[in-house]
Formats: sequence, structure tokens, C-alpha cells
Amino acid sequence: MNGAESLLQTLIDGGVEVCFANPGTSEMQLVAAIDKIPGMRPILGLFEGVVTGAADGYGRMADKPAATLLHLGPGFANGMANLHNAKRAFTPIINIIGDHATDHLPLDAPLTSDVLGHATLTSDWVRVCKSVETMAQDGAEAIAATMKGRQANLIIPADYAWSEGGKIAKPQSPPALEKADEEIINAAANALRSGEASCLFLGGLALRDKGLNAAYRIAAATGAKMISEVFPARIQRGRNRPTVERLPYLGEFAVDALKNFKHMIAVGAKPPVSFFAYPGKPSTLWPKDCNIVQLAVQQQDQIAALEALADLLEAPEVALPKPIALPEIEQGPMTSETVGAVIANLIPENSIISDESNTSGVFSYGYYDSAAAHDWLSLTGGAIGQGLPVALGAAVACPDRKVINLQADGSAMYTNQALWTMARENLDVCIVIYNNSSYAVLNMELMRVGVDNPGERAKSMLELTNPKLEWTKISEGMGVKAGRATTTTEFETLFKEAMQTKGPRLIEVIL
Amino acid sequence: MNGAESLLQTLIDGGVEVCFANPGTSEMQLVAAIDKIPGMRPILGLFEGVVTGAADGYGRMADKPAATLLHLGPGFANGMANLHNAKRAFTPIINIIGDHATDHLPLDAPLTSDVLGHATLTSDWVRVCKSVETMAQDGAEAIAATMKGRQANLIIPADYAWSEGGKIAKPQSPPALEKADEEIINAAANALRSGEASCLFLGGLALRDKGLNAAYRIAAATGAKMISEVFPARIQRGRNRPTVERLPYLGEFAVDALKNFKHMIAVGAKPPVSFFAYPGKPSTLWPKDCNIVQLAVQQQDQIAALEALADLLEAPEVALPKPIALPEIEQGPMTSETVGAVIANLIPENSIISDESNTSGVFSYGYYDSAAAHDWLSLTGGAIGQGLPVALGAAVACPDRKVINLQADGSAMYTNQALWTMARENLDVCIVIYNNSSYAVLNMELMRVGVDNPGERAKSMLELTNPKLEWTKISEGMGVKAGRATTTTEFETLFKEAMQTKGPRLIEVIL
Repeated sequence: MNGAESLLQTLIDGGVEVCFANPGTSEMQLVAAIDKIPGMRPILGLFEGVVTGAADGYGRMADKPAATLLHLGPGFANGMANLHNAKRAFTPIINIIGDHATDHLPLDAPLTSDVLGHATLTSDWVRVCKSVETMAQDGAEAIAATMKGRQANLIIPADYAWSEGGKIAKPQSPPALEKADEEIINAAANALRSGEASCLFLGGLALRDKGLNAAYRIAAATGAKMISEVFPARIQRGRNRPTVERLPYLGEFAVDALKNFKHMIAVGAKPPVSFFAYPGKPSTLWPKDCNIVQLAVQQQDQIAALEALADLLEAPEVALPKPIALPEIEQGPMTSETVGAVIANLIPENSIISDESNTSGVFSYGYYDSAAAHDWLSLTGGAIGQGLPVALGAAVACPDRKVINLQADGSAMYTNQALWTMARENLDVCIVIYNNSSYAVLNMELMRVGVDNPGERAKSMLELTNPKLEWTKISEGMGVKAGRATTTTEFETLFKEAMQTKGPRLIEVIL
Repeated sequence: MNGAESLLQTLIDGGVEVCFANPGTSEMQLVAAIDKIPGMRPILGLFEGVVTGAADGYGRMADKPAATLLHLGPGFANGMANLHNAKRAFTPIINIIGDHATDHLPLDAPLTSDVLGHATLTSDWVRVCKSVETMAQDGAEAIAATMKGRQANLIIPADYAWSEGGKIAKPQSPPALEKADEEIINAAANALRSGEASCLFLGGLALRDKGLNAAYRIAAATGAKMISEVFPARIQRGRNRPTVERLPYLGEFAVDALKNFKHMIAVGAKPPVSFFAYPGKPSTLWPKDCNIVQLAVQQQDQIAALEALADLLEAPEVALPKPIALPEIEQGPMTSETVGAVIANLIPENSIISDESNTSGVFSYGYYDSAAAHDWLSLTGGAIGQGLPVALGAAVACPDRKVINLQADGSAMYTNQALWTMARENLDVCIVIYNNSSYAVLNMELMRVGVDNPGERAKSMLELTNPKLEWTKISEGMGVKAGRATTTTEFETLFKEAMQTKGPRLIEVIL
């Protein structure tokens, strides 16, 4: 048994079932191992940003890692933007990065680079495999390392992969989440008992059903407001769940949303800072006199902390209020809001939304509070090009659930290759592309730095007109059936059809 | 004048004319500066791999740097694969990377990353701007730093860009190339005078007209063979130029090509090593008893070294032999060779070829020795996704020359977004996509690691069928007119038309 085979068998034994891959020559032994040993499903992505983004979507939904197979420094670099997002989402992922054989590395062949230097940029768990005998053990430790929401980056020199002497390693028990500090739970309870305006600022596992349930008990008992971070990795939403207000993206609005709170209990999220800095504007968004209690961070058991706090407050289980009505679908001119209203009305129970709609989705976000139950995945790290691959990975993790990708056009271009994999794997994803022919968020940002009337040169860097992208053609070129909507009625027809059939489908919304 | 404006004016004063850009919020001040100050042509790429690859193509042809505008760590990471290629091509590029404002950086906002850590992976010239007053000076030094064939990575905190107090800096004199060592020139002359089998192993500037002319004098006088590295950054070829044999890609064939040489004079290239290591095969490709003389490295004046060597050998100027005939265009089944024969017959004088045809181009490479004069740019660093962007950048640098991109399908997917920029800028590029629905090189590599009959799981990672990509649709979706050829005659018709008209055009060759 060679090293590659021992590693692969160990990953399979440890419950890793899927490998999103874009291998090269240095990973051929792993390709051969996947071919030989049953139990690992390889899924090809035609660009590494697709591979890593898919692993992120998979991990968010499966709560366990997929593996990726990446080719040396440049292959890893291509996947880094979505690994950045995955890091911010605390997604478990095992990246297997092939490197040159140990004798070959010092020769500085054309593809040589500092793979270790690359890998340390996205994770604090990085290991360069030191021998064929220990490769599988590295793999077993890598799985365990991911279970607290991080990436394991395992660098495999090609000669260790091809050499005989691999030893399958036993799965390791993953480390348990740390418990929240009792004193801090007490401090949170005292803050909430004060009667002063308070909020629960929620991220991470606090936004899953159990966390939301405990948070809702607390909110109902104390009057605290439930607010989520701007871009949660995964929030469970819909009409039979507690409604959570989303912190606004723009700092000014976020400051306004938080201005009255005297206490903020942060769970699974850090106290919020603005995405970017602006001259003369604050970067921290909470009021100066607000008492911040960090109840639990991502590495801690956030749900247990919320439940302990609810119990300490003697907060009973309470029924949810009657859900607000679904938004009305206004006919007439199509806007991103009318599109959002259609989607909120039509998504099936238990669907998954991968949201990278950016400016086009911001005003319809609230509509989904009254939609059928769903999981909402958002752009955690701000590195665009996440929406399509995350939808892909979520669909692999949850083959019985409908996935809807709300997708801005500029961001979609970054990892458009994901469409091909969706077609190849016949994944049940409906992509809604908001084609506004613009990096709309940047037009806004340009105004915010004081350019009110941009000239041709500035506009040429922010507008996606000349030529306009034709997403139906791009999609069909990669094998995904596509339709175009120019009115709300057309969109409704196309979206309804997509909800009633299985398989990948793209709808281009011309805004 | 703010920092961004002072930097921009300094770059313009220093001769930087083009900025390939994919800016974000942290670069808005630079966008505003480009808008306000005339002299910099901004060119938008819809993915950073396009931006950096275009800067590579531009730099190879213009012999001076373009600037890029990149957004924080993830934006830089997206461009790293093509910066890796550019580094291996010794291309001058100035990367301007925006970072968070200095006060904002410690707050760990979602897009925060170790930008410096990223930037040091592709260049040894990296600078984090330390104040608004020194930003322009950093820019002036960056230009000079690039002139010996390297990248300058300049990281600009947003607050320095937006603050007033910028001071335009004067252009600096670029450092001269170092002279080659006289003793080494003597050693090379002695080797060549030995009468033993010798080769000139050429890369870098040795493959430009002046270098080739001097090398040809040496070859004619001594019988030494002219051999180029496998993937030169830029080689000037065609029927009125000396013919240079290309070292084969596969190690076994390269060893065979070099086996008889007792002396190798390396100029602008290091002695060749194999791309990858294989069990039991040598990584260094020259014979053990071969005397290696490194006449000049990339940082040295390679042309002067060759001319000095030719003079020392008293090698006269000699006429070139009559060029070999152009390849005949065989009708009948279309293959990558019949396609290559058509192209070699039809390219206009002074054209530029950006070659990322990989396995599809390898057997027709020699055809172009008898073609009209052209510059040939190849995949220097092995990080795929270079061909389209390099063609883009070359076309920007040389608007009066026809650019032809020979492009493998799998590699084209990596940076397909380049098509849109070609359409937007109406660049005179003809893209020939070899659609073999496969990572063909990897099928070969899988055999080379001993898997002769790959099963479904292995094939699923190497084949691009199911679905087949339809490049004509992808191309038209991004605004580039496209045609499809299934026979050599169809290809000839389409290619002839493309050579006779200006503007971007894609031809999909179904193999």
C-alpha cells in the first residue's frame, strides 16, 4: 500500500465521503488511489475556486469536512479566496495539496513555489507530510482538527504518495467544543436582567434551530432583540422559526441599528465592525457605552451557552408569533424586490439558499422570514465568487433538498466554472442571476469616497456593460439549461418551473 | 493632492500607461485618481487572474511594466497563479494592492488577511506603504525595481490613499543589467573550441532577435546546437530567423535530446530540470559528464554576453539557410496538426502567438519555424489559465499586431473571463480553442504513474465530457464572435476570415 492509498483509506474510515478536486501531475497518485479504493466520491471542478467554495458549501451543510485535491502553490492560490470565506465561516475542510517530490523540490522546477507559505495564510493547522509511514496519521489528525470549524492543510510530497509503506491510521475522536465560562453566563444574565435595552448578537451555531430556540426564549423573557451578524455562514430561517434582524451592511445604518443598546450579548460572533473604513466614520459599530458580553466564541459550545443562559433566566419555552404574511408579488416593472418576492413565495420547504446577491438582494432579505423553512448561506469573508460554488457543495451535501443560488452577476463571473460541475453532477440547483451589468456596490462605494459624478475612466472600472454578459449563453455553454426574464411574470413562470423539476437551471434576471 | 493621486501621477510620469484592474472598496481612491488625472488607461478584468495574466502579456511585449489594481489578500490570491507564471517569465509588473486603513486593520473585519504574507510569495520586492508622504516615492522605486524583470508588490493602506499630503516623486533611473563575467565568457569559448558536441541552451533575452543573431553566429562557427528552454517567455520565430530546437517537455525525451552533449552553454535559462519528478527517473536532464557553463542569467545582459562570446570566437555574421517550406495543409480528418499547419501558413507578418495549447500544440510547434515572423509567448510557470490573459495583454501592448491565442480547453476555463475584456477593448485577438474535452496531459500523466486502465472515478477527474463545453456559446455570452470547426476546411475558412478582419474572434476546434 502506497502513501496515497493509506491516506485515502484513512480519510474514508474517518467519514470523509467527498473529494472536490482539480488534480495535476503531482496528485496523480491520489487520483489513482481514489480510482482503486471505493468510498470516496470525486467531483471535478474546472477551477480551484470552485473546488474550495464547493467544499465550503458542503461543510456548512454536512457539518463535517469534504476533502479537496489541489495542485501545488498555484492551484492552492486559485482556491484561496474561497478558503478565506470558508475560514470566516468556520467551515471544516481538509485541503490535500500535492507538492513536488522531496528530491525534486530544491531543483526549482517551473511549478515550484512556497506551498507551506501559501497554506499558512488560510489556516493555523498546516502540515507538510514527513514520510510515507506517517501520511495516514496526518490525515487522521487533519480530520479531527477540522471539527472545531477550521481547515486542515495537508501538503503531500509526491514521492511519499507513490512510495510503498503506507499505514492506515485510526480515526481520532474530534475535540469537543469548549464550554462557555460560567461567570460570563452570569454576567450576561445580569445584563439582561437590568431592564436596559439589550441585544443578542448572533452568529455561528447560535443561528441553528437549537441556538435560535434558546435565544428566542431569552429574548421573549427579557425583551432583548435578536440580531444576526451581516453575513452568517448558515442561518435557519422561515415562517416557523424565530425572526432575527440582520445587522445592516453599511456602517452608518449598523450604527443606527445598535445605537440604543446598553448591553450586547455576543454568541458565535464577535462584536461587529464595519466591512471597510471610511474617513471620519467609526469602524466599531456598537455605542461607546454599550456593555459587551462575549458569551461564547466559535470554538465554544454556543448552543449550550445559550441554553444555560436561558435556564439561568428561567426563560420558558414560548410559542412563536403568527408569521407575517408572505410578500405580495407586484406585477409590472421587474426589480430585484419583485424577484425576491416571487422566490420567497415559491421556495419549497427545507430548501437551501446560497446568497451572493449583494446589492440586488439586500432589500428583499426580510421577505424570507415568512417563507417556507430554509437554510440561508451567505458571503462570510467578502471575497466574491462564493455563491455558485457554495450552492454546488450544499447540493452535494443535501441531495434531497432544493438549492437556490441568489447571485450577483459580477461575482458570478469569478467562479462561473461551477455551472459545468452542476451540470455534470446533475445537482438540484436553481441559479438566479441578477444581471444589473455593474459592480453596483462599487458605484455606491465610489460615491462614498466623494466622487459623485464619475467620468468615463472610473465608470469603465465599475460597469459591466459594453458588452453585456449573456448569462443564458454562458450557462448553456457549460451545460446548464437557462432562461431569461425581463418581467416579473416571466420570472415567476421560469422560477415555478425550476421549483417543480429537478436538476440545474439558471434564470437570468435582466435588471 | 491625496496619496492615491500622488502615486498615480508618479506612475504616469515614470512611463506606466496601462492599469489592468479589478478594484474594490479599498481601492476606490485609486479609481477616483485614475478618473481625475489623465494618462493612465484602466482596463477592467472580471477576475484577477485575467488582470495579472494580462499584465504579464503586456510586460513581455512592451518590455516595461503595466500596473495592476488588486483588492486585498483574496484579490491578490486570485491573481497569484498568473503572477507565478509572470515571475518565471521575468516580466516587469507593478501590483498595487489595496489594504484596509491602518486603524481598521487590527479590527479583523471580514476581508482582513495577511496581505504582506501573500505578496512575498510572488516577489522579493514587496513594500507596505508607510505614509501618505512616501507613497509616491514607493511608486517611483517600484517602477525601477521591475526593470530587471521582476514584480513590485506595493501594498497601499486605504487611509494613506485618501489622506491629503501626497508628494509626486521623480522617476528613478532603472538599474542596468549586470555584465556577464569575462572568465565565464572565456570558459564558454574554450568549451566551444573543444570540438566536442555542444549546445547553446537559450532562454530570456537570448531568444530575442539580437540574442538569436549572436547565438546563430556562434552556432555557425562552432557547430553548437541552439536549443531553447521548453517554455520561453518570448521567442522571436519565423522563416527569416534562426531556427531554435525546443527542448521536449517530457523528461525522457529531453534526456534523449541532450544525451550527446559534452558542453552546455546556458544563457538566460538555467540548466533544464524536468517539470515533475517520477519514480526512478532523473530530474536533471543533462548528461552527468556534461560541462555546464552558465554564461549569463536573467539578471545579466544576456545579449551582450552572447555578442562578446561570438566576437571572442571570431564568429562572422552568416546568412541564414533557405527557410524550410511551410507545412502542407492536409484535408480530411481535422487534427491538432492540420490546424497547426493552417495557422502556420496564414499568420500575418509580425503577429504574436500566445500559446497554451499544451498537448494539442506540441507536435505542430516546429511548423512555425517557416511561418511569417512572429513572437511566441508560452506558459512559463506551468500554472494553467495563462493563454487568454497573456493574449489580451499582448494585444494591448501591440495594438497594430495580430495576436493569436492557441488555447487548450481545460486551461481556457481557468480565466475564461478574459474574453469579455477582449470584447470590451475590441482587441485584435483570434483565439483557437482546441476542444478535446479532456485534461489530456493528465491522462498521459496517469499512465506514467502506472495506471493503464483508469476506472470511472479516475476518468471523472480528467475528462471534460458530460457535458462537453460549448465554447462558441461561452464566447458569445461574453461578447466575442465565435465559430466552430469540425473539419480542416471549415477551420481554414474561419481562420482566414479572422486574419483578414480586426477584433476579437474565437474559433472552437472540435477534436
